Amino acid sequence: MNTLNINGERLWQALMDLAAIGATPKGGNARLALTALDGQGRDLLVRWMREAGLAVTVDQVGNIFGRRAGRNDALPPVMTGSHIDTQPTGGKFDGCYGVLAGLEVMRTLAERGIVTEAPLELAIWTNEEGSRFLPVMMGSGVFAGVFPLETALEARDSEGKRVADELAAIGYAGGAPVGREVGAYFEAHIEQGPVLEAADRVIGVVTGSLGVRWYDVTVTGMEAHAGPTPMPMRRDALFGATFLMQEVVKIARDFAPHGRGTVGVVNLHPGSRNVIPGAVRFTVDLRHEDAEQLARMDARFRAACAAVADGTTTGAVLPVDVQQVQYFKPTPFARELVEQVRAEAAARGLTHQDIVTGAGHDAVYIAGVAPTAMIFVPCKDGISHNEIEDARPEHLEAGANVLLGAMVARAGLPAGA
Amino acid sequence: MNTLNINGERLWQALMDLAAIGATPKGGNARLALTALDGQGRDLLVRWMREAGLAVTVDQVGNIFGRRAGRNDALPPVMTGSHIDTQPTGGKFDGCYGVLAGLEVMRTLAERGIVTEAPLELAIWTNEEGSRFLPVMMGSGVFAGVFPLETALEARDSEGKRVADELAAIGYAGGAPVGREVGAYFEAHIEQGPVLEAADRVIGVVTGSLGVRWYDVTVTGMEAHAGPTPMPMRRDALFGATFLMQEVVKIARDFAPHGRGTVGVVNLHPGSRNVIPGAVRFTVDLRHEDAEQLARMDARFRAACAAVADGTTTGAVLPVDVQQVQYFKPTPFARELVEQVRAEAAARGLTHQDIVTGAGHDAVYIAGVAPTAMIFVPCKDGISHNEIEDARPEHLEAGANVLLGAMVARAGLPAGA
Repeated sequence: MNTLNINGERLWQALMDLAAIGATPKGGNARLALTALDGQGRDLLVRWMREAGLAVTVDQVGNIFGRRAGRNDALPPVMTGSHIDTQPTGGKFDGCYGVLAGLEVMRTLAERGIVTEAPLELAIWTNEEGSRFLPVMMGSGVFAGVFPLETALEARDSEGKRVADELAAIGYAGGAPVGREVGAYFEAHIEQGPVLEAADRVIGVVTGSLGVRWYDVTVTGMEAHAGPTPMPMRRDALFGATFLMQEVVKIARDFAPHGRGTVGVVNLHPGSRNVIPGAVRFTVDLRHEDAEQLARMDARFRAACAAVADGTTTGAVLPVDVQQVQYFKPTPFARELVEQVRAEAAARGLTHQDIVTGAGHDAVYIAGVAPTAMIFVPCKDGISHNEIEDARPEHLEAGANVLLGAMVARAGLPAGA
Repeated sequence: MNTLNINGERLWQALMDLAAIGATPKGGNARLALTALDGQGRDLLVRWMREAGLAVTVDQVGNIFGRRAGRNDALPPVMTGSHIDTQPTGGKFDGCYGVLAGLEVMRTLAERGIVTEAPLELAIWTNEEGSRFLPVMMGSGVFAGVFPLETALEARDSEGKRVADELAAIGYAGGAPVGREVGAYFEAHIEQGPVLEAADRVIGVVTGSLGVRWYDVTVTGMEAHAGPTPMPMRRDALFGATFLMQEVVKIARDFAPHGRGTVGVVNLHPGSRNVIPGAVRFTVDLRHEDAEQLARMDARFRAACAAVADGTTTGAVLPVDVQQVQYFKPTPFARELVEQVRAEAAARGLTHQDIVTGAGHDAVYIAGVAPTAMIFVPCKDGISHNEIEDARPEHLEAGANVLLGAMVARAGLPAGA
């Protein structure tokens, strides 16, 4: 058999057609979960799925599945998918690329009349972004049993509207039970970071997702007038906090290449130009691909906090309160599937490298219940969650070809096909 | 002649009586400049001044002067004073102590029938706090020619009310021209800092006021997702900014004992837990008693900014914008008057030490047009601009005695008195 290839122009046209629903003036997309626009996007996808010969079902949390039967249809499906909901000022590729690359796989197989051994499915997960309803990655989370269906259906947006009602309003309150056996799950996605572009690679072979620890930290000093208070008599909360902010970055650097450390929010009390800060609150985001390493990063950060608190760091006692407010454990992807992606990229002569995902994806939840892998393609300047998000047609085409190859290889072709 | 002493109980009672006008539930004072309450406070002081035999005049910016004639009344007056307006949640002592210590000097001299060679005056300066109208230290500023009368009279509060109209409404739009020759100016004040209390000294001999440089600083990096962006590819504006925040403190420590360095306001953009800060804006407050040393502190801070900007400090290029937004030059007080305060404290056997004022006072402006000195007494825990501001009666009494002694010594007693 000759190498199977998807149709890159058709893929690009599908991306542009979907992006017309909820298009923003700056070239982005605003199609928030379970809005009328999301309903229009879903309707378009369902029509395209049916035209490609897929049998469409909708489950109780609104996840849509398009199924292409296998020769041995009792086998668990080889699935791909992503989401079509966007951020309020989102781009045209985040999520949509994974769904439409999957659709393109199905269209290509239909065109060629190829039937795989195991069935194939294309999933559109409900509310991945979490911009309108929390929790984020809602549809895949319920599917993978991370939280109960009821939690999702009862979630309300800022206007008090319920997920259950909004699903019904757009016609996607489905009847299928949520969750079932999946043989393998692949998800194609834009990288949402700068690594592939900087390394000039077309394909990112995603080996897993980083674990994340989020903290709220408060350093307490003593508020006093900046003029009359001599330096040795100060308990400057900000001065102490700066050492912890630096330590966050240094820890991440020391746990290279997959350590990450970020302080994104800082608030001072009272926040006046001529008053020594009496308290500083800030957030910390530590990430690593390995749970044990992440625990060591946590320990080192807490030790730094203790040294600020007892006066070792600055000479002044500055009590530090550290609250871990969120923990997502690292998720390594299935070795066999990752290897399939790598082999497919190599076989097609595509430049590629291993990469981890620092952002969350539906695949990270699905990885808890099925062998999973992801395929990244570069995005311009690493920018995502932004209307200027962009990606090159040839990269999107290449990623879809790798997806096609990996899915078919995994599902199996009848002998002699 | 026996040592002259003021009446400490009468001083305390006057403080409590004035504090009853605009008393707050937490024991503080809210008597904002040119409000009806300020008018009531002024009326009480004017009555007390007249009862003590003083001739009262009011100038065009509402400054009140109570004059006790000298034997040689053509000599320029030896003046004392302060203010009776307060912060919105102010204390009972800030400003009021200086005015009522001066009143107590006048009462004591009246009681004893003592006439000094030069005339004595007690000044109540309009709107020192600047809580309602800017600029701060308004009355003394116009008196000293720092800004024009018109600027003060046209100033408006947040409701659009004009100083000129509010002066008239409370009956203090005076006719006397603003500014004239002053032979010497003394001002007694609570320290508003922790130095005297910590050193267990009763009298602070104030040698001058710190110069101040205020800056607005912006460090610019590149906003990016905290997950997918590896550490070496980051331009983290906060990481760079923390080195500058630390340098502010280190510079001040290296210019001990009178260097001060404070970062009181920090704002991050975009300010999201999982986004690397793209920009950090913060304020810097550098102080020193010597203008040249303060200029050296400025140069060192700017060098640190340049090292962050060109990548030397963090390895990433992070442009830094530094704007000096305010400069108050250091004001050394008159050596001869400072010595008079020191000698008076010593003669009375009061523990004392030299000190500089880090906060602004009317005396700092008057020092530009007349020989000036200040007398500090301790305040509890160094706390001021707060309803819990407190001071001990024996300290207040001691400070008023030093004021009495210094004023009389400066004005001169007729031979044999």
